[in-house]
Parts: sequence; structure tokens; C-alpha cells
Amino acid sequence: MTPSSSLDELVEALRCLPGVGPKSAQRMAYHLLQRDRRGADRLARGLDAALQLLHHCARCNSFTEAEVCERCLSSRRDASQLCIVEMPVDANSMEQTHAYNGLYYVLMGRLSPLDGIGPKELAFERLFARATDGVVKEVILATNFTNEGEATAHYLSELLHARGLKVSRIARGLPVGGELEFSDAATVAQALRERRDFV
Amino acid sequence: MTPSSSLDELVEALRCLPGVGPKSAQRMAYHLLQRDRRGADRLARGLDAALQLLHHCARCNSFTEAEVCERCLSSRRDASQLCIVEMPVDANSMEQTHAYNGLYYVLMGRLSPLDGIGPKELAFERLFARATDGVVKEVILATNFTNEGEATAHYLSELLHARGLKVSRIARGLPVGGELEFSDAATVAQALRERRDFV
Ligand SMILES: [Zn+2]
Ligand SMILES: [Zn+2]
Repeated sequence: MTPSSSLDELVEALRCLPGVGPKSAQRMAYHLLQRDRRGADRLARGLDAALQLLHHCARCNSFTEAEVCERCLSSRRDASQLCIVEMPVDANSMEQTHAYNGLYYVLMGRLSPLDGIGPKELAFERLFARATDGVVKEVILATNFTNEGEATAHYLSELLHARGLKVSRIARGLPVGGELEFSDAATVAQALRERRDFV
Repeated sequence: MTPSSSLDELVEALRCLPGVGPKSAQRMAYHLLQRDRRGADRLARGLDAALQLLHHCARCNSFTEAEVCERCLSSRRDASQLCIVEMPVDANSMEQTHAYNGLYYVLMGRLSPLDGIGPKELAFERLFARATDGVVKEVILATNFTNEGEATAHYLSELLHARGLKVSRIARGLPVGGELEFSDAATVAQALRERRDFV
């Protein structure tokens, strides 16, 4: 159709979304322009606001608009327990169990050498500083039971042990290869209850 | 995670994309914020530019930044033939056959009563005005061979016949239920060659 440049650019820009190939990007662009211009505008505004306002919580590393997020500031939480998860959605899964009342640290990823994501990219030093604040007594590793999540847990357990912390791992109540995000609350609760010392 | 409002809003805004549910929207938001902020910014800019610059070609109804698109302005095209397609991607499929040198009219949809899309929503009056410019001799219906595409072709053929135009339909060289966008050029070329008078 001799597509004009701003159409091409929009299609190309939509491909930055994970799982969106050239065909879906084209379909999305036409849909937005033809059927949902208000939605497109809302998305542009939403992206701008999120990029501008959101940054990492100084304590748990999750996204927040404040310096420290609400959960980290809560006085009703047991600050002696620190649960380490890969992503914010994983902390949501933990919350939905109503079986955990400690604090969180969100890695925002997992060790993945093939993708060039190592301890430096995940800023493990920040985690160690957080975990050794003198208040945290137990670190609960709740990374996924994928190969990468397991490797991350093993790596972290050694370094956290070396810093004199009690380190536990949620139980493999989740199926092998499973991810927290796709598990029901009961399974995640079970896995939390059966956490074992990390050896 | 007590997600902040601009994060919630971004997740909600991403759901305006076709085929994107709550889980994928969340995944997309985290991906953009954590791993591809430049992509997110590019997408916001791309949406803004597309919304501002793109509108419908005054002749073929496809998207263009100009009043009339390049193809409609080309003097090398046979203006006596007008091929009606559902979407711009379908015109692309026709072009890739190198078997058609006429002009196009893009419906930007198809009749779909269940979705509330009728002749008015598709602005059929504009199409009729375009087809009865005195230059067009033959209208080639190249809507998809889906139920809705077929219904659209039948509906249009009657009204175009009534206006004294020769109306043809590309041959059912495409499999039943097939869509132009997903057919190879040879099949689409065959369907074009074997077009028959619309009865
Ligand atoms: Zn926090
Ligand atoms: Zn045009």
C-alpha cells in the first residue's frame, strides 16, 4: 500500500512488545488507527507517565512512584523475613496466599548468562546491602523452579550464607519447571509452608 | 505489590491492543519498564505521530499522510479497474502478485452485524461515489472468503450492479475460510486471474 512513514514507524515500534511479530504489529496498528484511536492515545499517555513516574523502590526494588513503596513502609509486616522473588507478579502470587507477612526483595529478573544477565546486571550488591541491615534474620528464596530460577537461588544462597544469614527455599510444591505466576494460591501457600533450609 | 497508579494505568492501557489479556499486558509493562525503556518511548512517540499524521486517502480510503496516497496518484495505473479489499494488508497481498495494475478501495473492515459494523460504519456511500467517477469500468471484489467477507461481496455486488458497473469476484482459488493476508502470492495471483462475473 505504499505505507507512509509514520505507519511503518508505528508497526516497527509495536514490535518492542514481547511476543509481537511483524504480522501482529501490523494488525495492532490498523486496529488502533481504525477502531480504537482513544485507546492508542491512552496507551501513549500511559507509557509516558510510567516512564516518567515509576522507578525502583529503594528497599524492595519493585516499581513505585514513591522513594519507598507502601509495603516496605508498612509497620504491620515482619521485617525479620525477606522473601526474594524474580518479578513483581511473583510477589503478588505470594501475597495471594495470605501465608506470608514478611517483606520482599524483587530481583527484576534471574541469572541468565545466555542473555548477558549476571549478578552485576541484577545489582546483587543492593540485595546484599538490604539483607544485611541487621533486622532481617531469614531470607526466603522464592525464585521460580526453572533452571535459571534454581541457578539464581543456589548462587544467592551461598553468598547470603557467607554473610551469616539463615537462608531457606520455598518447597518444590510447584511442578518442576513451573512458574509462580501461573500457580494457584493453594499450591504457592503449600510451597511456602514447606520451605526448607538451603544447603 | 501495591502497584502504583501509573503502572496500573499502563497495564490497563496495553489491553487496548487486540489479543492482549491482563497477564500479557502485565508482562509487557514489566518488560518495557525493566528491559526496554527506549522501546517504550519509541512506541509512545510512534503512537502520537501516527494519530496526528495518518488519515484516510481521499480516493482509496487507506492510511496516508497526504491528501491522496502515492498509489492513487500514479499515472502508470489502470484507473478503469477498482479492486475492493477489506484492509491495507490485503492490498499488499494483491500487489505482491504483480498480476494487478489497477487501483484499490480499502473498506477498512467488513460487514459484521454482530459487531455493529454495517454499510454506514464502513461508509459505503464514499465507495459508491468513488466507483461511479465515470473512469472505473470494472469493480473487482477481493474481500476475504470468510462468511463476513462473502456477505460483504454479495451486498456490494448488488448495489454496484445497480449503478451500472461491471462487477467481478476474485476466484475461490483461496481455500474456503481463507484470508488474503495468509495466502502465498501464487495463490492470490491465480484467484485474480480466474475472477468471474458476479451474478
Ligand atoms: Zn518496596
Ligand atoms: Zn489512495
